[in-house]
Amino acid sequence: MNLSTQPSVIQADELVDADSRLTETAAQLISFGQFCYQQGWVFGTSGNFSKVISKEPFCLVITKRGAHKGNLSVGDFLQINQDGEAIQSKEQPSAETGIHLTIISECGAGAVLHTHSIGSTLLSDWHARSGGLAIHGYEMLKGLAGVASHDHREVVPILENDQDIPRLAACVGPTLDRHPDAHAFLLRRHGLYTWGETLADAERHVEILEFLFEVVGRNSLDRGAADPSRMQGGVAWRS
Amino acid sequence: MNLSTQPSVIQADELVDADSRLTETAAQLISFGQFCYQQGWVFGTSGNFSKVISKEPFCLVITKRGAHKGNLSVGDFLQINQDGEAIQSKEQPSAETGIHLTIISECGAGAVLHTHSIGSTLLSDWHARSGGLAIHGYEMLKGLAGVASHDHREVVPILENDQDIPRLAACVGPTLDRHPDAHAFLLRRHGLYTWGETLADAERHVEILEFLFEVVGRNSLDRGAADPSRMQGGVAWRS
Amino acid sequence: MNLSTQPSVIQADELVDADSRLTETAAQLISFGQFCYQQGWVFGTSGNFSKVISKEPFCLVITKRGAHKGNLSVGDFLQINQDGEAIQSKEQPSAETGIHLTIISECGAGAVLHTHSIGSTLLSDWHARSGGLAIHGYEMLKGLAGVASHDHREVVPILENDQDIPRLAACVGPTLDRHPDAHAFLLRRHGLYTWGETLADAERHVEILEFLFEVVGRNSLDRGAADPSRMQGGVAWRS
Amino acid sequence: MNLSTQPSVIQADELVDADSRLTETAAQLISFGQFCYQQGWVFGTSGNFSKVISKEPFCLVITKRGAHKGNLSVGDFLQINQDGEAIQSKEQPSAETGIHLTIISECGAGAVLHTHSIGSTLLSDWHARSGGLAIHGYEMLKGLAGVASHDHREVVPILENDQDIPRLAACVGPTLDRHPDAHAFLLRRHGLYTWGETLADAERHVEILEFLFEVVGRNSLDRGAADPSRMQGGVAWRS
Repeated sequence: MNLSTQPSVIQADELVDADSRLTETAAQLISFGQFCYQQGWVFGTSGNFSKVISKEPFCLVITKRGAHKGNLSVGDFLQINQDGEAIQSKEQPSAETGIHLTIISECGAGAVLHTHSIGSTLLSDWHARSGGLAIHGYEMLKGLAGVASHDHREVVPILENDQDIPRLAACVGPTLDRHPDAHAFLLRRHGLYTWGETLADAERHVEILEFLFEVVGRNSLDRGAADPSRMQGGVAWRS
Repeated sequence: MNLSTQPSVIQADELVDADSRLTETAAQLISFGQFCYQQGWVFGTSGNFSKVISKEPFCLVITKRGAHKGNLSVGDFLQINQDGEAIQSKEQPSAETGIHLTIISECGAGAVLHTHSIGSTLLSDWHARSGGLAIHGYEMLKGLAGVASHDHREVVPILENDQDIPRLAACVGPTLDRHPDAHAFLLRRHGLYTWGETLADAERHVEILEFLFEVVGRNSLDRGAADPSRMQGGVAWRS
Repeated sequence: MNLSTQPSVIQADELVDADSRLTETAAQLISFGQFCYQQGWVFGTSGNFSKVISKEPFCLVITKRGAHKGNLSVGDFLQINQDGEAIQSKEQPSAETGIHLTIISECGAGAVLHTHSIGSTLLSDWHARSGGLAIHGYEMLKGLAGVASHDHREVVPILENDQDIPRLAACVGPTLDRHPDAHAFLLRRHGLYTWGETLADAERHVEILEFLFEVVGRNSLDRGAADPSRMQGGVAWRS
Repeated sequence: MNLSTQPSVIQADELVDADSRLTETAAQLISFGQFCYQQGWVFGTSGNFSKVISKEPFCLVITKRGAHKGNLSVGDFLQINQDGEAIQSKEQPSAETGIHLTIISECGAGAVLHTHSIGSTLLSDWHARSGGLAIHGYEMLKGLAGVASHDHREVVPILENDQDIPRLAACVGPTLDRHPDAHAFLLRRHGLYTWGETLADAERHVEILEFLFEVVGRNSLDRGAADPSRMQGGVAWRS
C-alpha cells in the first residue's frame, strides 16, 4: 500500500477546493444511498461508500460509521488521508476504511462501494466453500469496465467474514493479487465490495452485480422443468 | 408492570412540551409508516407503532386502532398513561397497547414497533413448533443493539397468536423473562414486535429483522445446488 | 339485479353535486391506481375500479376501457346508471361494467376493485380445479370487513375466465349466492375482484388479499425444512 | 429493409418540427426510463429505446450508447436516418440501432423498446434450446395489440446472444418472417425486444411481457402442491 509519497500538507486554497469537492461528492453519494435504500441494499445502517477526491495529496471521502444510508447528509462523511486518518476532524474513521484504502491501492480505484443485499448475503454463503463464485454468459457482464462480451467469466472471490477488520483488510490485498481482473469481492454472509475508476463505474458495478446475484440465485431454485404437467398453460412449446 | 410511582398530575407548561413532543414524534412515526407501507409491511391497516415521550409522568404516543400506516396524520395518535388509559382523549386505546406497555416495562424500551410482513408471517408459522427461530452468523445481526459480531445467535421467540390480547400480553412478560437478550418476538402468522431504547434503534431493528427473515426464508427454498446441470452458465467454479 | 325502482331523472343541482362527487371519487381512484401500478397489480392497462356515488338515482363511477391505471385522469372515468348505460356521455362502458353491477347488486357494495397481480394470476390457476381457495389462520384476515379473528376461514371462489362477459357476469351472481360471506372472487389466470361498503373497505381488501396470496404462494414452494444441512447458519434452534 | 425511397433532404421548418418532436419524444422516453429503472429492468445502463418521429423523411429517435436509463436527458438521444446514420450529429449510433431498424422495417413498428430484466434473462435461458417460449391462457395476453382473448398462444422467439450485432440483426429479420404474429423476441441471457405501432403500445407490451415472464417463471418453481402437510393453515379447501 503506497498511495502517495507526497507530504499531506494542505494549503488554504486547496481547502476551498476540497470543500467544494466534498460537497459535490457528498451529493452524489447521498443520491446513491437513497437509491440503494429503496432497493433494500443498505438496511440497518449497513454498507459504506467512498470516493477519492484528490490523489495528491491523497484525500478520500467516506461515510461515517453507523450513518443511515437512505438519509445521508454532508455531516455523515469524513475526509481521510493516505494513512487512514481523518482530516479536519477528530472523529475516528470506521474500521472498514482500511478495506477501502486497500482496494484503492491495489486496483487504482477512484470509488469503492459496499452494499449489503439479500442476494449477496445468500450467494456469498452458498459458494463460500469454493472460495468464490463465477458468473459467465450474461450480457449484463458487458457493463463491467473492460468487459467486451457476454462470453466473459467473472470470478467474484468470497472471503470469510471477520470482525478483526485489519486482519480482514490484510486478506483483501492477496485476494486481489490472485484475481487481478476482479471487479468485486464478497464477504461471506455479509455483502458486496465493488469499485471503479470513477464513481459512475462503481455505481454501475453495484447494479450489475446485484442484478446478476439475483439471476444466479433464482436460477438455482428447483424447477419442474422436466415435468410436463408443470408446463400446462404456461410454457409448452412446439417449434 | 411498575412503570412509575409518580402521580400522573400534569402541569400546564408540561402540556405545551407534551404537545410539541407529540408533534415531533408523530412526524417521525408518519415517515416510518410511509416507508413500511412502501415495503408492504403494514398492509390492510396492520401494524402499530409507539414511542415513550415522557418517563415521569409516563406518556406513550401510540397509533390508533385501524389507522392507515402509509398515510398517518397527527390525529391518528393517542397519548397513553402508565395504566394504559388515553390522556386528553376519550377514545379507547387499541387492545395491543397492553403488549406495548409490557415490552416497555420488561425491556426498558423507549419505542415499540409492530410490523406485519410476508416474511415474518411465513417464518413465524414455519418455526412455531420450536417456539422460536434462531438466526446466527450474519453480519446484519451486528446492527442489533449491543451485538458486536456476526458470530451472534439471536433467538426470536414465537408466540401463538391470540385474539384475547390481555391473555396474549400476559404471555409476553414471561417470554421476555426467559429471553432477556431478545430484541424481538414473533406472533404466529401475525408479525413482528421489536423495540429499542430509542425510536432510531427500534426502526433499525425492524429493517434488520425483516432483512434476515427474507434471507432465512429464501435460504430454506430447495435449490439444485448438488445438480451440476443447474450450474451451467451461472455458477460453475474452479478455483 | 334490482338496483333501484326510481326513475333516473336528474335535476340541475343534482348534476352539480354529481360533478363534485365525480371529481372527489376520481381523485381517490387516481391515487389508488398509482399505488396499484407501483405494486405491479395493474400492468398493461389491466384492472378496473368503480364506486357508487349515488344510490337514488343510481350512479356508478367506473374507469373506462383501456385506461392506464398508473396515470388516470378525470377523463378516464364514466358515470353509469342502473342499466349499465353511460350518463352524460355517448361512450360505451367496458364489458366488465356488468360484473361490477352484479357485485353491487348482490353484495350491496359501495365500491368494486379489480386488480391483476402475479400472485392472483398464479393462485387462481393452481386452485382452479377445486373451484376456490380457502385461507385461514392468518391475522391479516381480520382486516376483512366483519372478520373478528385470525381463526377465520375465508373462501375465495375461482371462476373460469371467459371473454363472453355477460355470460361471465351471469356466473358471478350464483357464485356469490353460494358464498354469501365472500369478500372476493378470482377469475382464473386473470385476477381479483373484491369490494366493500366503502371505497376504503374495498382498498383494504385488495391489500389484504394480495398480501395473503403472496403468503400462500410462497408457503407452497418446496423447502428443505426437513433437511438439517439446509439449516446451517440460518435457523437451527434448540429451545 | 426498404424504409423509404424518399431522399432525406430536410427543410428548415421541418427541422423546427423535428426539434419539437424530438423534445416531446425524449420527454416520453425519459419518463419510461425512470419507470423501467424503478422496476430494475434497465440496470447497469442496459436497454435502449427508440421511436419513429417521421416516416418521410425517415427519422428515428434512439437512446445513445451507455446512457443511464433511469436518468436520461435530451442530450442522451440521437436522430437516425433510414441508413442508420446520425442526423445533426457526428456521434456514432450504438450497434443495436440496426436491430431497431430491422424491427421497424419488418413489423412497421413506430417504437421499439429493449429491456433487460431478471425474468427475461432467466426465461430466455431456460427455453433457449426450444428456440422460443409459448405463453397461453392468460388474460394479460389481451393487452397485446390485436389479441382478443386469453385463449391466445403467444410465441416469443429466442435468439442466441451475439456480440456481432450486424450478424445478430441479420437473424432478426428471418425470425420475424417465421413469426409474423410475434409481438416480441428474447435474446438469450440478455433481454427483451418488443415494439408497437405507437410508443404507448410498445410500453404496454413491455409491462405485459415482463409480467408474464414473472408468472411463467414463478409457475415453474417446485411446489408441494401434492403434499397435504404443506397445505396446513394455508390453502386447504373443501368445496
